[in-house]
Amino acid sequence: MEAHYDALVIGGGVIGASTAYQLSKMGYKVAILEKNQIGCEASGAAAGILGAQAEIDEEGPLLELAIRSRALFPNLVAELKEKTNIDVELIQKGLLKVATTEAEANVLQDKAERHRRWDSDVRWLSPDAASEAEPLLTPDTYGAISIPKDGQLMPAKLTHALAHGALYHQAAIYENCHVHHFIYDNKKVVGVRTSAGNFYSDQVMVSAGAWTKELVAAIHPKHLFPIKGECISLTTNQPSIQKTIFLDEGFYIVPKAGGRVVIGATKRAHDYTKHVSAEAIEFLISKAISLVPSLANASFEKAWAGLRPQTVDGWPYLGQHPELDNVYLACGHYRNGILLSAITGKIMAEQMMGEHPKHSFFTAFRLQREMEGTY
Amino acid sequence: MEAHYDALVIGGGVIGASTAYQLSKMGYKVAILEKNQIGCEASGAAAGILGAQAEIDEEGPLLELAIRSRALFPNLVAELKEKTNIDVELIQKGLLKVATTEAEANVLQDKAERHRRWDSDVRWLSPDAASEAEPLLTPDTYGAISIPKDGQLMPAKLTHALAHGALYHQAAIYENCHVHHFIYDNKKVVGVRTSAGNFYSDQVMVSAGAWTKELVAAIHPKHLFPIKGECISLTTNQPSIQKTIFLDEGFYIVPKAGGRVVIGATKRAHDYTKHVSAEAIEFLISKAISLVPSLANASFEKAWAGLRPQTVDGWPYLGQHPELDNVYLACGHYRNGILLSAITGKIMAEQMMGEHPKHSFFTAFRLQREMEGTY
Amino acid sequence: MEAHYDALVIGGGVIGASTAYQLSKMGYKVAILEKNQIGCEASGAAAGILGAQAEIDEEGPLLELAIRSRALFPNLVAELKEKTNIDVELIQKGLLKVATTEAEANVLQDKAERHRRWDSDVRWLSPDAASEAEPLLTPDTYGAISIPKDGQLMPAKLTHALAHGALYHQAAIYENCHVHHFIYDNKKVVGVRTSAGNFYSDQVMVSAGAWTKELVAAIHPKHLFPIKGECISLTTNQPSIQKTIFLDEGFYIVPKAGGRVVIGATKRAHDYTKHVSAEAIEFLISKAISLVPSLANASFEKAWAGLRPQTVDGWPYLGQHPELDNVYLACGHYRNGILLSAITGKIMAEQMMGEHPKHSFFTAFRLQREMEGTY
Amino acid sequence: MEAHYDALVIGGGVIGASTAYQLSKMGYKVAILEKNQIGCEASGAAAGILGAQAEIDEEGPLLELAIRSRALFPNLVAELKEKTNIDVELIQKGLLKVATTEAEANVLQDKAERHRRWDSDVRWLSPDAASEAEPLLTPDTYGAISIPKDGQLMPAKLTHALAHGALYHQAAIYENCHVHHFIYDNKKVVGVRTSAGNFYSDQVMVSAGAWTKELVAAIHPKHLFPIKGECISLTTNQPSIQKTIFLDEGFYIVPKAGGRVVIGATKRAHDYTKHVSAEAIEFLISKAISLVPSLANASFEKAWAGLRPQTVDGWPYLGQHPELDNVYLACGHYRNGILLSAITGKIMAEQMMGEHPKHSFFTAFRLQREMEGTY
Repeated sequence: MEAHYDALVIGGGVIGASTAYQLSKMGYKVAILEKNQIGCEASGAAAGILGAQAEIDEEGPLLELAIRSRALFPNLVAELKEKTNIDVELIQKGLLKVATTEAEANVLQDKAERHRRWDSDVRWLSPDAASEAEPLLTPDTYGAISIPKDGQLMPAKLTHALAHGALYHQAAIYENCHVHHFIYDNKKVVGVRTSAGNFYSDQVMVSAGAWTKELVAAIHPKHLFPIKGECISLTTNQPSIQKTIFLDEGFYIVPKAGGRVVIGATKRAHDYTKHVSAEAIEFLISKAISLVPSLANASFEKAWAGLRPQTVDGWPYLGQHPELDNVYLACGHYRNGILLSAITGKIMAEQMMGEHPKHSFFTAFRLQREMEGTY
Repeated sequence: MEAHYDALVIGGGVIGASTAYQLSKMGYKVAILEKNQIGCEASGAAAGILGAQAEIDEEGPLLELAIRSRALFPNLVAELKEKTNIDVELIQKGLLKVATTEAEANVLQDKAERHRRWDSDVRWLSPDAASEAEPLLTPDTYGAISIPKDGQLMPAKLTHALAHGALYHQAAIYENCHVHHFIYDNKKVVGVRTSAGNFYSDQVMVSAGAWTKELVAAIHPKHLFPIKGECISLTTNQPSIQKTIFLDEGFYIVPKAGGRVVIGATKRAHDYTKHVSAEAIEFLISKAISLVPSLANASFEKAWAGLRPQTVDGWPYLGQHPELDNVYLACGHYRNGILLSAITGKIMAEQMMGEHPKHSFFTAFRLQREMEGTY
Repeated sequence: MEAHYDALVIGGGVIGASTAYQLSKMGYKVAILEKNQIGCEASGAAAGILGAQAEIDEEGPLLELAIRSRALFPNLVAELKEKTNIDVELIQKGLLKVATTEAEANVLQDKAERHRRWDSDVRWLSPDAASEAEPLLTPDTYGAISIPKDGQLMPAKLTHALAHGALYHQAAIYENCHVHHFIYDNKKVVGVRTSAGNFYSDQVMVSAGAWTKELVAAIHPKHLFPIKGECISLTTNQPSIQKTIFLDEGFYIVPKAGGRVVIGATKRAHDYTKHVSAEAIEFLISKAISLVPSLANASFEKAWAGLRPQTVDGWPYLGQHPELDNVYLACGHYRNGILLSAITGKIMAEQMMGEHPKHSFFTAFRLQREMEGTY
Repeated sequence: MEAHYDALVIGGGVIGASTAYQLSKMGYKVAILEKNQIGCEASGAAAGILGAQAEIDEEGPLLELAIRSRALFPNLVAELKEKTNIDVELIQKGLLKVATTEAEANVLQDKAERHRRWDSDVRWLSPDAASEAEPLLTPDTYGAISIPKDGQLMPAKLTHALAHGALYHQAAIYENCHVHHFIYDNKKVVGVRTSAGNFYSDQVMVSAGAWTKELVAAIHPKHLFPIKGECISLTTNQPSIQKTIFLDEGFYIVPKAGGRVVIGATKRAHDYTKHVSAEAIEFLISKAISLVPSLANASFEKAWAGLRPQTVDGWPYLGQHPELDNVYLACGHYRNGILLSAITGKIMAEQMMGEHPKHSFFTAFRLQREMEGTY
């Protein structure tokens, strides 16, 4: 098989699907080449917190990217629902970042101060106020930051809605498609050779998560690696929590539709397996019950793991390949892939199609820093 | 355990969940007693067609019930989404009832005429017009009735949304709760004895589908029985059909969100098993491909069966028990349980709470006809 | 449908399947009537320990029953493999009953003494000897009883092998068959009315676990009830334990084929749900890791619950119904259903077919004690 | 991570597991490096027919390999059961290769003649004799070859038993381990770089099925490719067939333990997806019912697909890499991977460890023919 496209997107996770959606919506003929199934890796394993403020405490390009991306979701979700009938279950009831010790409370109060500079809705809640905000939270906290704008959604549904949104705009989806290598014409990338045949295009984006480095030699193998996160879900027919509960260390309890809560996540660097260890489950349940005691009686539903792609400096690689003109990269979003997917897809699509960059801060994420060792 | 409620609903299918939702929304304290899991029987196995006109061709109480019920869904779906975050994927793109022979075309044209008397949007489509309305339909039809108002949704999600909507209004849900028998106080039913203890209430509704007769002696065992329906689903990453395809014999292809189609259903009376036979799958696939040839390449997803409760005259039993003042029945909806759930829940809740009946046609569904043998 | 059989077995758990197997092997025409699927309740949820000595410490009829039953398994397993090709994975590598405190060690040493009277292979192991016997056991024990004859097997496979063994001998299996009530002819039970029609036979056995009382009025509802047990399984590609690890409180870790271990079980009386609670999983994992530390890294596989039928005095009901000549009961085996299935099936079949009772101790299990309140 | 082994086996399918088992049994320290899970590709998707004679009609090296391999199974299965407790459900009740037209009958009678030269147990059965041999076979055949020695087993269980047999002999198993490339020391392969770190060894075998060519440049990409096979399974509680039913075109119905039958397989070359198409299921069911009419009522269980690695001349590549001294290949077994696994593992292990080749015919399978284009 041979086929020509305006753009190829390698990797059908949320980043690839978002970019393909934007490209096809702009009228370009796009193919998504996915080695397994759409959304089968980190994108489908995430908890879906749109934690722009929960996850990022420092002002700078990453926070700007995150806050802009978060703001895109209400409209994006509505247009995907319209086009694909898929509802991604966006819930905007806010997040509590809880202090479990006095020391943590001091740290979090400082963070709350900082956040209030750019978002006056952020508030520090006393232990009593935290209990009032979320009655099922243990009364034994040391207070919490209330971040009302950090919503959440169902990541696997978002990924499928983006891919089917691309389909709606005439994109093609190839699953179980193994990309072997680039096809060059006189040092210029003109396509890819795959298990499903050759695909030709002048624009190729690689958004293959932790596997991106297998295709892109410019990334040092040690500079992009998975951090495995293990999660579980519980269900209940009792009243459940309404707000996302979040700890600074990266632990969270996320209330989904229909009485489900998602609890995560461990962090195991360089582990490519999807096993969920016995001790991980014990840790997640024990921590969840200490924060929301009524979860002790909730029903166990399932356990899973995702391999979140991390870079050496913690920032994603976004933008044009430093040496190959027609190759673009978008990978390394670590825990923020879902949150950042909305803006990443939009900016990448614009860049690939030669639109003048509107977002100067975006250059901070270029792969050049990898080449130059400037982090 | 002993507990007192304003009303008990026995059976957590779509009818029970809908009634419990309406009762709890009216402010009553309700418990749903479900022998297995919410929505685990016919409600979760349905295809979810809101086929008021596709399923019913005769004017009369059943058609009136169906058309009124269909009209309630847009608002109901929106309020459930608001309260539970569950989207039931209501799709309102219409239905084509297709003629596959000239004889069928004659019959369907007559039916189209009749429907047009009360719905001027119904139209008869020539074979070419049918192909234009749904390009993936085989061109080899003998025409089709276009019924634009018959929508569809995800039945399991509707059932869960109704049950969680009841939960939102402080109802209690007891799963794996076996109801052994009524508790009488001086010939008056005052509660039920169950595997989870005794529940007391002056109002008891039984909406246990084909199992209702095990509890309600007034129903002759042969007058309420399951008609097993076997279904399959396929998925595709190719463009898929947009409209529900329906044959007069009760065969259908229903396009769901995300490239899924549901294909059903066989009819096996008196079969309580949930097995899906090899020949049923062969029949469903072969028929589906003959109508929509591109489905040949769609991916098989799964097969399942539901036991749809049928009555001897084909109409549901709705209303007060003829001999037990405090006992109400709502069962026997056969293929129309999802469609009729919206209005059934509303009217049953009103009746149970003594509201003056607004819908005189509703008396046609009383169990008295069973007692009197007047059908 | 109407059908005549030599014997009807109501309940397709391990007890019913074993009796049906023995009856059909003796040449009788048997039908198994099962409300859901063969082995879908407690029989399929058990861990499969043949713990004649691990579970029972007192001499008497129950121990005699258990030891005789355990001795039947090697031949039974071989003949089922021959007839059905199903291997039930019988493993006879013994069991360690571990002391985790000094007080427990004292109790267990006494028990070891007692057991040695009738089984000289039983030995008390010092902490060092226990570690040597099972190197993956934590060295921090207070010793253990070694019971080399208590083997284990896969309970769901045993149940299916027995049912298919009955099939091999021309028995009939009806799944999803709801038995409504007995059919009497002049006060004599002559059959049962079911959702699949009427079945006639002069011999009816009820082996429906915790649901037996729904059919047999002679059993007081409070005298036969489920004790829910929650279990999990882990898998590993590392070397695993070889011996079953058992605590006197009823906790166990059972090594299965292919690197799987089954860990159980909680005890929740009167709970008919199959939910597995978050706290149960935390408890099971935490206890398992404290005994076998290397399990911390094993992969979580799944969680499940079974409703084990318990009687008020802890002994099963076995034998003829005290008032209905043709009705037999075999239920209430609690945690010992798998272990006792071999002998129960054999003796029940003999009794039903009028063979002279060979086992006088068997009368201890008659339902009369229920009627007479003599426990 | 860095580790040294006596031998590395890349690919944890049945061929890799068998070789690792034999190597570790010989006392060598072995690691299996598997990109997903043990047995997750073609090995786990096969039907498990040991069809030495059913599949191969020409005398020559392939038939010799197949017949020798088939003869190894009874002992292999017994030793794996002993070491791992895994029973692979070897059934040796023979196979009927059925003629469905007169023309086929003529072809098959010739084949039967040929087979009888080296196996006098092979017989040609008239239609009546075929019906007698397998009473559930349709009487409307044109006769059948009876091949009593072609048995069958459960392929996923065999693969796991081999891997756990290797574990028993101290081998290590790495799942989710992506092998990136060989590590060379002065043109000699000394190990592999993987996602789980570097592994060093002087002996490396690649048995990665259709993916082998991604690692071994000497194989032309077009000379090793998948032929997707789609299968389904049915179950029944009725008496089922005893013998494997086989058609010359490669269609089969295989009776497994416990009333299960496996039906396969389609053939789709160059298709890397695991989708099972609607038309494939229709084809398999319709063909199966035409041969064994009672299967019409059997219950559908599941559908799956496997990617069987095929070579350009239809023979596997077995032996040393023509240019890299320390690299061995075993791949391309197409439909015969399970059958050939026993002998392949044995001979490959012997070759890798420098044992003098005992089987001169084995040289026919060398990769040299690929290099030299001598097929």
